[in-house]
Formats: sequence, structure tokens, C-alpha cells
Amino acid sequence: MATIKDVAKLANVSTATVSRVLNKNGYVNKETETRVKEAIKQLNYLPNDVARSLFKGKSKIIALFVPDITNPFFPELARAVEDYSNYRNYNFVLCNTDNDSEKEIVYLNALQQKSVDGFIIVSSSITEDDLKRIKVPVVALDRIISSNVSSVTVNNREGAGKAVQYLKSIGCERIAHIAGPENISSARERFQGYLDEVENETWYTPKYVAQGKYNFDKAKEAAIDLLTNHPEIDGLFVGNDLMGAGVLNAAASLGISIPEDLAVIGFDGISLSKIITPSLTTMAQPVYEIGRRAAEMLIFQITSEHPEIMSEEFDVQLMERQSTDVREGSYDR
Amino acid sequence: MATIKDVAKLANVSTATVSRVLNKNGYVNKETETRVKEAIKQLNYLPNDVARSLFKGKSKIIALFVPDITNPFFPELARAVEDYSNYRNYNFVLCNTDNDSEKEIVYLNALQQKSVDGFIIVSSSITEDDLKRIKVPVVALDRIISSNVSSVTVNNREGAGKAVQYLKSIGCERIAHIAGPENISSARERFQGYLDEVENETWYTPKYVAQGKYNFDKAKEAAIDLLTNHPEIDGLFVGNDLMGAGVLNAAASLGISIPEDLAVIGFDGISLSKIITPSLTTMAQPVYEIGRRAAEMLIFQITSEHPEIMSEEFDVQLMERQSTDVREGSYDR
Repeated sequence: MATIKDVAKLANVSTATVSRVLNKNGYVNKETETRVKEAIKQLNYLPNDVARSLFKGKSKIIALFVPDITNPFFPELARAVEDYSNYRNYNFVLCNTDNDSEKEIVYLNALQQKSVDGFIIVSSSITEDDLKRIKVPVVALDRIISSNVSSVTVNNREGAGKAVQYLKSIGCERIAHIAGPENISSARERFQGYLDEVENETWYTPKYVAQGKYNFDKAKEAAIDLLTNHPEIDGLFVGNDLMGAGVLNAAASLGISIPEDLAVIGFDGISLSKIITPSLTTMAQPVYEIGRRAAEMLIFQITSEHPEIMSEEFDVQLMERQSTDVREGSYDR
Repeated sequence: MATIKDVAKLANVSTATVSRVLNKNGYVNKETETRVKEAIKQLNYLPNDVARSLFKGKSKIIALFVPDITNPFFPELARAVEDYSNYRNYNFVLCNTDNDSEKEIVYLNALQQKSVDGFIIVSSSITEDDLKRIKVPVVALDRIISSNVSSVTVNNREGAGKAVQYLKSIGCERIAHIAGPENISSARERFQGYLDEVENETWYTPKYVAQGKYNFDKAKEAAIDLLTNHPEIDGLFVGNDLMGAGVLNAAASLGISIPEDLAVIGFDGISLSKIITPSLTTMAQPVYEIGRRAAEMLIFQITSEHPEIMSEEFDVQLMERQSTDVREGSYDR
């Protein structure tokens, strides 16, 4: 296999000049650059990225931390991050943290030792102290982790409010909520958006709120309790689509017809919401777009001389599907 | 930050001795080893893995190639690979190849330049020539790519045969099949398992086989055609669970009751099959186990002096759910 010395010899330059051409830094005149590039091509020379990363302190690898890739929201995010990284010639390490801060710390240390260039982090457990250990750029995705860290999120509170307004607009008069975990900012914001719309209603009671932990089985149980104890509920805003699937399952087991007896709206807009029967109306995040934007922001910070803290919030969009389609005869199951 | 020289100085040994302790190779007496370890601890010294990988030619990174992480079969595999890699102190790079052999080659080159220690590959497009470019161990997962490469798969043909036998056992007399792509070995084997059980039946016709491309929308379309043109079909063996969800969707739109009018069985056993309503009977692969086994096999090959080609085939298991539950009054939707 050809080495940098072979390239230098063939191009009749020093290895330092070859290195300047490879790394695109320092002045090399056009004619010399062409000669070096031809020598590289002729010898089929592959620069060793490990040696380059030792020299430059960069590995062209970024990491994505997600709680669990088997939660169907995260594969769509991961795909977007990987596509953009790949387009920019970065590789992408995936870490499942289970929202366990000890695991997060082990990963942070191991990957910094491997000279990973930056981190995109979905986390509810990482602390300010953990963040201080990170010497490379970080972008928080989906959940804000600190005001000192760049972030890409969606407008959860406003989106949740719009979900409840939509249920009202199709005639729901007793609207309940299945919430996500209290320690996750997106879940708290969505719950707040629900409260904004219902707290002043005469029918509202805190008993209409149940905890589903962003989990299919937990949400199914919560829905069975809620719908058994409060048969007057005619609309349900569910904190995410995965829990929405649990609610549809609960309704089927209780013999409750959706949307005739109960209209259901989720949040996220993952593929699952389209695949299930009846299909689930949802407040869709631009999932691919936010994943891509986080990767773009991170690589900008890695390559920029003066990176700034940036925060971007995307809007969510109503996707009308069968689970709220109460028009006469419209629902042909 | 402390360097290896600082550690050597404090422990009063040479840097070569520190390196022997760090890399666990070569003889170091017990007392010296303890002194070096204490110095490392006292100085909070972190060995630079990039320098170590340059020295040893190993990065402690492995790569997983999947066609597309948003296909719900792959997150479960990826999770298993990552868990086991992490347990063995390896990090894990995820690559979405879209079954595009050009993309595969770009990834193979880029990751070998980064001294990745091995590859786990799910692929239907990689060629023998591509494999020759790989200088590190490879394990094929889910699909066999060459007899020269270790593999972890399931017994697709036998499992498919059992699926059809099960449909017969619950009374189905006209059993159709929605197949996966012909260029994917698992899809061909499952189709063959179907044929094994139906080819000698008087009612069998090739018209009972449709192509669903392992895709939700394509399978839905195929099922609508099949069930419209052949209303006598009372059982359907679907080549994977994602397509099974498409069939349930098709049946709902045609007003066909499942399981009363049509019994449906899938293949894979992904979480989706449990989440949808009605839940989908399926031939379940031990998905987590095969992902874990592939990672274990790869790391064995990376660390072994004399790695051998290994092939392992796992059995699949019938999971009975609502989509085939034709017992009287048993299905309380």
C-alpha cells in the first residue's frame, strides 16, 4: 500500500506539502497541488484517517445519544442525522442511553477518548456537570438540556393546545389527556398546552389526566382506567403516538368505537400513526427535518472558528386521520 | 491534562512499561503494575484511544450496515448489537445503505480508513468483489452474503412452512402468500416454505402469490388486488410483519373481518405485530438474540488469533394472537 512518502517522492515535493494538500490548509501553488493530486490518484493512496485524526484531533465521527432506538420515534431521527452526516463525510455512532446518566457518562468518556468530534444528545438525565466534561460541540435534540447548549426542538406547548382546540372543533365536550413522564420537558410542555385549553372549562377535573410514561403498555392501562371510570370522556389528547396506539388498543378491548364514541389525537407523526387501524390523527413534528437540522448545526459548530449557541424551534402540523373523522358515513372500516 | 510521560515519571518506570500495563501485553511484575495503576488514578490519566488505535491498528469500533433503520425490524437488531458491543467496550457505527451497493462501498472504504475493527452486514447487494476489499472480520446478519463469510440467520423456509401448517390447522382452505423481494434470500426462503405446503393442494394456483416488497404500502395494494380478485381466500401468510400491518389495513378498507373472514399470519415478531389492532399472529424470530449473537461472533473473530467461518441458524416460534383467533366468541373487539 502506498504511503505519504511515496506520494511525495512521485510528485517531487515534501511530505509536508502533501499533507497541506490533503488537509486543505496552508498555501500550496496550483501547479504543485495538481501534481500531488495526480500522484495520489496514480498510487491509489488512501490517507489513514486514524493518523490524520491524531494529527488534527478530529475523527470525522459524531455521536447520537437516544434513550432507546426501539422507541419508534428515534429511528426516524437517527436516519436523518445519519443521512446528513454521511453527506458531509462524517460517520455516526449510535448510543442507547436508557436515560441512565451513568451510561451517558461512560459513553461521553469513551467517545471523547476516540476523538469523536461532537455529540447530538436526546436526554432527560444529563446534568450541567456532565456537560462540563464535554470538550467538543454538543447539540440537544428534542429536549432542551441547558441554556448553554444549542438545541433543536418543536413548539410542544402550542402544538398541544392546537390538538385540544381541534378536538373541540369537531364537537368533543369532555377532553382527557394521557401525559408523558414528568421529567421529560416535551411531556411537561404538552401537558401545559392541554391545561391552557381546558383549565377554564366548567367540566374540567384533574381526574381527566393520567400518566402513560411514553409507553405503549402503560398508556393502554391508563386509558382502560380513565375510560372505565369516566365514560363521559369523548375526546382524548395523547402525549405521543406510541401511547396513542395503546389507547386504540384499550378502546378495542373495551368495545369503545373510535371515532364514533371517542375521538383520539396523538403527537409526533411517526410512521406508526399511519400504519395502525384506525389510523391516528396527530400533531406531526417535522421529524426528518429536525434530525437533519441538528446534524447540520453540529457540523457547523465543529467546523466553525467561532461557534455560537443556537436554538431553533420548529412548528408541528395537524394530520387528520381516521381516529377523529366523525363526519357522517366517512369512516369505511 | 496528564500524559503517559507524567504517569511514567510518577511511577518511576519507562513509558514502555506504562504502555505494557495499559495494553495488557508483555510481562510487568505485579508490584510495578500496581504502582503504574495508582499513578494513572492519581493523575486522572486518560489514554488517547486514537493514538492507541494507530499503534495497535484497532479502534474498538464496529459497524452495522442495515438497509434502513426506519424499517421496524432493524431498530431491534441494532439495539441488541449495541448492547453487546457496549458490554465489551466497543462503540458502534450505524450505516443506512438503502441496499445500494455504491453506498456500501463508500462506507466500507471510509470506515476501514478509520480503522474500524469489523462489520456486521445486513445486505442483499454486496458482492464477492466488495467482500475482498474488507481486511477485517465480517459477520452477515439476517441474510447470507457468501459461504466465505460467517452468518447468523433464522430457519426461514421451515418457519414459513409451519406458518402455513398453522393456518391449515385452524381450518383455512385457500391460503395465499404476500412475498418479499426476490433478491432477498429470506424472502425467497419464506416463499419456498409456503410452496412446500401448498403446491400439492388441488386448490393451489400461482395467482395466490403477490409481491409486497417488504413494504407497508406495496403490501396493502397487493392485498387489495388479491382479496378483490379472489374472495375465496380465507388465509394469508404474509412474508413479514410490516406487510402484515398493510394487509390488516387493506382488509379494514374492504370491510373484510379479521379473523372471521380471513386469518392472517406474519413473520418476524417485531413489536409492531403486538401493538396493532387486531394484534398479528406471527412466526417470531429471536430478534434480540440473533443481533447479540452476531456481535458476539464478530468480537470473537476480532480478538481471536485463528478466527473460523461460523454459520448459525436460529429457529422461529409461533406467536398466536388475534389475527388468527377463530375460536367462537374469543375475539372481543
